[in-house]
Amino acid sequence: MARTDFSFFHTLRVRWAEVDMQAVVFNGHYLTYFDVAFTEYWRATRLPDALAHSEASLEMFARKAGIEYHAPARFDDLLEIGVRCAGIGRSSLRFLLEIFRGDELLVSGEMTYVYADSRLRESRPVPDDWRERLSSIEKATPLQP
Amino acid sequence: MARTDFSFFHTLRVRWAEVDMQAVVFNGHYLTYFDVAFTEYWRATRLPDALAHSEASLEMFARKAGIEYHAPARFDDLLEIGVRCAGIGRSSLRFLLEIFRGDELLVSGEMTYVYADSRLRESRPVPDDWRERLSSIEKATPLQP
Amino acid sequence: MARTDFSFFHTLRVRWAEVDMQAVVFNGHYLTYFDVAFTEYWRATRLPDALAHSEASLEMFARKAGIEYHAPARFDDLLEIGVRCAGIGRSSLRFLLEIFRGDELLVSGEMTYVYADSRLRESRPVPDDWRERLSSIEKATPLQP
Amino acid sequence: MARTDFSFFHTLRVRWAEVDMQAVVFNGHYLTYFDVAFTEYWRATRLPDALAHSEASLEMFARKAGIEYHAPARFDDLLEIGVRCAGIGRSSLRFLLEIFRGDELLVSGEMTYVYADSRLRESRPVPDDWRERLSSIEKATPLQP
Repeated sequence: MARTDFSFFHTLRVRWAEVDMQAVVFNGHYLTYFDVAFTEYWRATRLPDALAHSEASLEMFARKAGIEYHAPARFDDLLEIGVRCAGIGRSSLRFLLEIFRGDELLVSGEMTYVYADSRLRESRPVPDDWRERLSSIEKATPLQP
Repeated sequence: MARTDFSFFHTLRVRWAEVDMQAVVFNGHYLTYFDVAFTEYWRATRLPDALAHSEASLEMFARKAGIEYHAPARFDDLLEIGVRCAGIGRSSLRFLLEIFRGDELLVSGEMTYVYADSRLRESRPVPDDWRERLSSIEKATPLQP
Repeated sequence: MARTDFSFFHTLRVRWAEVDMQAVVFNGHYLTYFDVAFTEYWRATRLPDALAHSEASLEMFARKAGIEYHAPARFDDLLEIGVRCAGIGRSSLRFLLEIFRGDELLVSGEMTYVYADSRLRESRPVPDDWRERLSSIEKATPLQP
Repeated sequence: MARTDFSFFHTLRVRWAEVDMQAVVFNGHYLTYFDVAFTEYWRATRLPDALAHSEASLEMFARKAGIEYHAPARFDDLLEIGVRCAGIGRSSLRFLLEIFRGDELLVSGEMTYVYADSRLRESRPVPDDWRERLSSIEKATPLQP
């Protein structure tokens, strides 16, 4: 992946409370950064149920996360987080995320979410309008199941 | 992996502040749990420099993390986290971690750390006494490079 | 307050992710420690609805917090957190908390919670059995409204 | 205090990971918000040593925190955090902070920091240029020792 493979970026600044005694961001906080960027990506899709997942019983749950730490982010760094939807299965969605400080790639990751009914604890098919909207946003690189 | 593949477990209880609006532990906090369990694993090895890595310039840095979320942990759950060293390379160490609630596997993960001089930003060979000690602890399943 | 003014203590160990670049616990995390200790205090009261507050619409909400930082906690410190109920009003409960490392007082604090119906957003009288139980636990020092 | 008493505001959005099972921001996270807003306030003062406190042994440490929770912040809320320096003592600095969602005051707080040599663990006089700069920024309401 390269910066140009992302059509969406979210910018955030590293907080004091996120930096550890090694003067670098603690490894777990990058998943919080991913989540913040993902929320903004989702808002940008303008999908109607965008932020409603917290109220209905239909919600997205993290199923899998992978992270590679290339170089550490430090206190007060301004980070740009690229998000792209890389694949849609029957009930799962896969996203690639990369964190840059200027042109330097610090962290790359992958998140898989499953769309599910949280009360019945059963997966549900990804809605068609989600599929279309996400495909159209990421049309440069076709989504794979 | 099965529970019996781990000779080391650390127990912790889910905190209120770690549970989100979906009434499950936020996905990023499992890396904190891994880190807490790893600290205790390391203490159990009795390796001399165990916790000294914060003072010297020789430290371990997270290089890679992988997590699979099988079932959610909830507020006040008592979790048991298995840790085992699964491989030692020239300057890297690979650990497998699994989080159980009773007999139910909730989360499985893998962490790779690199041993490095943080001032020079260069990797360093894993010390021989670490290698021997970790191999002896995990002797049931030989370590792979 | 002195150590002997507390009949309840909860012990926890400082996590790596909680320590900042100054090599001390970030000031906000002590409220998490207070919350963890408060959960255990509540469990110890054996009040029937102890942990049910997350499911009913009757819940306790933080109304006020005060913290004094006397000396910093550091990575891997084993902390003992004293909790005592110091006052019960019509719908509010006031708790004193102190964090010790051995005999050294590191942090002292005060939390006020209000008992309320979260749907109607109205305060509710503290149930009589709570009042009796807490008074009996803290009988050495009578509770003040 | 009123919104108009603040000449400085920092805006941030509530993150998913900061919201608990009660669907409100966990009480401890407001201290992180205070800290983030304080960092931006400090940057705005353009004091030369602004962010250098992490490298020298002269640093500011939290000495006291007070928080009142008036109404809860919720997921995705856009919050404005007012910061003002309200007093400078020989070696201490006192700040008032208020968190608004639109015109609604959600949280008000007070932080006292002490300026100290972290190696010798001794307080140090607040530098004169800090004193002048902060007084001039807050000139509408004179600072009290």
